[in-house]
Amino acid sequence: MSQSAGTRRGHLRLGAFLYPAGHHIAAWRHPHANANAGSDFRHYVELARIAQAAKFDLVFLADGSGTRGDNVDFLSRTAHSYVAQFEPITLLSALAAVTDRIGLVGTASTTFNEPYHIARKFASLDHISGGRAGWNLVTSSSEHEARNFGFDEHLAHATRYERAAEFAEVVEGLWDSWDDDAFLHDKAAGRFFDPAKRHVLAHRGEFFKVRGPLNVARAPQGRPVLVQAGSSEAGKALAARTAEVIFTAQQRLEDAVAFYADVKGRMAQYGRDPDDLKIMPGVMPIVGRTEAEAREKFEALQALIDPAVGLAMVSTLTGGFDLSGYPLDGPIPELPETNASKSRQALTLTLARRENLTLRQLYLRVAGARGHWQLVGTPNQIVDALEERFVNYGADGYNVMPALLPDSLTDFVELVLPELRRRGLFRSEYEGRTLREHLGLKRPGSRQVREAALEPGV
Amino acid sequence: MSQSAGTRRGHLRLGAFLYPAGHHIAAWRHPHANANAGSDFRHYVELARIAQAAKFDLVFLADGSGTRGDNVDFLSRTAHSYVAQFEPITLLSALAAVTDRIGLVGTASTTFNEPYHIARKFASLDHISGGRAGWNLVTSSSEHEARNFGFDEHLAHATRYERAAEFAEVVEGLWDSWDDDAFLHDKAAGRFFDPAKRHVLAHRGEFFKVRGPLNVARAPQGRPVLVQAGSSEAGKALAARTAEVIFTAQQRLEDAVAFYADVKGRMAQYGRDPDDLKIMPGVMPIVGRTEAEAREKFEALQALIDPAVGLAMVSTLTGGFDLSGYPLDGPIPELPETNASKSRQALTLTLARRENLTLRQLYLRVAGARGHWQLVGTPNQIVDALEERFVNYGADGYNVMPALLPDSLTDFVELVLPELRRRGLFRSEYEGRTLREHLGLKRPGSRQVREAALEPGV
Repeated sequence: MSQSAGTRRGHLRLGAFLYPAGHHIAAWRHPHANANAGSDFRHYVELARIAQAAKFDLVFLADGSGTRGDNVDFLSRTAHSYVAQFEPITLLSALAAVTDRIGLVGTASTTFNEPYHIARKFASLDHISGGRAGWNLVTSSSEHEARNFGFDEHLAHATRYERAAEFAEVVEGLWDSWDDDAFLHDKAAGRFFDPAKRHVLAHRGEFFKVRGPLNVARAPQGRPVLVQAGSSEAGKALAARTAEVIFTAQQRLEDAVAFYADVKGRMAQYGRDPDDLKIMPGVMPIVGRTEAEAREKFEALQALIDPAVGLAMVSTLTGGFDLSGYPLDGPIPELPETNASKSRQALTLTLARRENLTLRQLYLRVAGARGHWQLVGTPNQIVDALEERFVNYGADGYNVMPALLPDSLTDFVELVLPELRRRGLFRSEYEGRTLREHLGLKRPGSRQVREAALEPGV
Repeated sequence: MSQSAGTRRGHLRLGAFLYPAGHHIAAWRHPHANANAGSDFRHYVELARIAQAAKFDLVFLADGSGTRGDNVDFLSRTAHSYVAQFEPITLLSALAAVTDRIGLVGTASTTFNEPYHIARKFASLDHISGGRAGWNLVTSSSEHEARNFGFDEHLAHATRYERAAEFAEVVEGLWDSWDDDAFLHDKAAGRFFDPAKRHVLAHRGEFFKVRGPLNVARAPQGRPVLVQAGSSEAGKALAARTAEVIFTAQQRLEDAVAFYADVKGRMAQYGRDPDDLKIMPGVMPIVGRTEAEAREKFEALQALIDPAVGLAMVSTLTGGFDLSGYPLDGPIPELPETNASKSRQALTLTLARRENLTLRQLYLRVAGARGHWQLVGTPNQIVDALEERFVNYGADGYNVMPALLPDSLTDFVELVLPELRRRGLFRSEYEGRTLREHLGLKRPGSRQVREAALEPGV
């Protein structure tokens, strides 16, 4: 593909999705892995610095407010069930102090949180980091989280999304509590702020009653960047209305292109421009100088997958249905529709049916990248695939999920980035200082400023 | 006073209580002040580094989940109503990355939070900081906070403390989710943790139902240090049962000694040793090389107090009763008992009645240090007062509240600490690495380890 194909669309946005020892389900067992990575702050400092030196737009942290699952034998065999790792807001705040350019995006659920706390913490992180904060809004679909917050089971899918939509509205409203120039700091007159530039939200909705104002000054970015991940109908509608970045999971080009067109097509009805939202699918690249080297790296990780863990991962991806009674080399059984994450469930089952996989084949296919797109090959092969999806409007960039950390991140930086740059598909230097500037997103005016601009004669 | 008097009791513990431009109500208006301190991360980095270089035990941050008050004209005249400052957990996490020895204590309310979130964030901070985290447990007494969390008014005092006690129990239980040696990281056998060393809390109480386990490994300190501030009956009972540090506000030696004896005397009934709790009253020292210099520094700040702010501060300290209709130079009116913080209310009114103060005299007396103990004098005078209270068992140390930052902190380090050290009352080097080690607090075994130790024959 020619260089002009890439540059017609500008360049890719890249996130470094950090997961303790790496995204591959068996990464922690690899000889190079730091098995204690989830509790090792120095590990994350090293990763954030590698990603920043390579000019990634952002680092990204997932989250769960509880360990995933009740089967203790299974849990004890994996480092992928949030049994012991840093809480994202504390970790990102600490990373803010030892980095100066890279964006810091953390996940926080709308299901068991209060919007005032979330608005406040991400606004605070935006100040600490000088305008580099992003909030990945999710809903919690696991009973294991619900049980840590007074519930016996999790909320129904539709209710979760209604709550999430109102939650986002409250958080955005709180972020508009103060105009940019509200704080006068006028020592002589004794005026700390201008009362006319303080806005009381006084929200009263179905789920929340929040007065405000937020007790943090307007964020350097105006508002922290709002990120979302859901691919269900409700998730896409919410994203079209509010999200500025979407992380998705599509295996195939045509699915990615359809998703991209679908979500961007919905934005006009909310008065939004398609460029106000960057779609960044997850991808787990395993790169070698030769195809054989890449394959060897991949198989070294695959060989470490404990069958009990692989099977449980498939069970999680398909809605929590217990698969342990079914033969590993038999077909995938019919599964009931559940209340869990619909997008991941549909994705996994579609893959299995399309390729007529056995349970074992399915777990070897999806356990590694946990349902995300994986690419195993040379730098040219990987860049070809990334470029193809980009120029065909299936992605504005990627959330890179290193299989093994730091090795796979370093490989990506040393082998893939030079080829992306050669084709004009990625930056060599940051163009700005804030996450919004990296992503090419406008700095939003506050609600009050926007409303004033709409008033005739003003 | 002789050196031996101090050393018989070991040495003082010192906290640096950081408040944006300083604790004096008018600090932000001082020519040396950084009026934007509450949103300036570099300001806090500088303060934390000064405190660490001086071997303070900890830095301390107060908190409020909302601005304090509805009177916008008043709010706009002060930097002391939490209108715009960092959220403590994010700020302390960031400071953890740029310090390596000093303790990091942050306030978080039990009234509008979930114990799982609080347990997780402070455990995470303890890992990030290598064992330097402390949680200051408070209850929220302001309607302005309640209204940000779906309530029209705040909870009754008694209910707040019942909820706080159960909240603390849940948090401590969650911190005991994993034994110290639970994580095996056995790559060959594929065992990430030992299932026998994971503990499900399964708490079901009056206010909370929390299953656990926490998804953070056991904290480096075993548990983060638990700090409390309440001086009411309910507050003292809770502190005697669970607190490891208490911040108090007593104006006079005899009150401090009585409080100290009262709280420490209650500990035996909970099976605790008096040394398991350090009592550290707040003190605002203004020091000069001469008395005249100290007085001059103090008056420079006092002269900046806006009468409207002073009056409103007295109103806040006495329970929120509106005093604006009363003559400034008249007596303090009779005030109704309110649902607000009883300890501060009683303290302020006792002072006013004892000295027969007018409203103006009262605000000039209490507005500066906001009801805390203030000392204005030479290094010798200040150290005499600190030593007197220490050797008479009125304090185990102090939470130092610099009037103006960084000036008053630097003054304390340069003028007061050398005299404290000369008398053997303060360290010249850290003895350990964790906050518990600084404070001389034992590292707690987990609940399971303690219970096993009590079983006969084990």
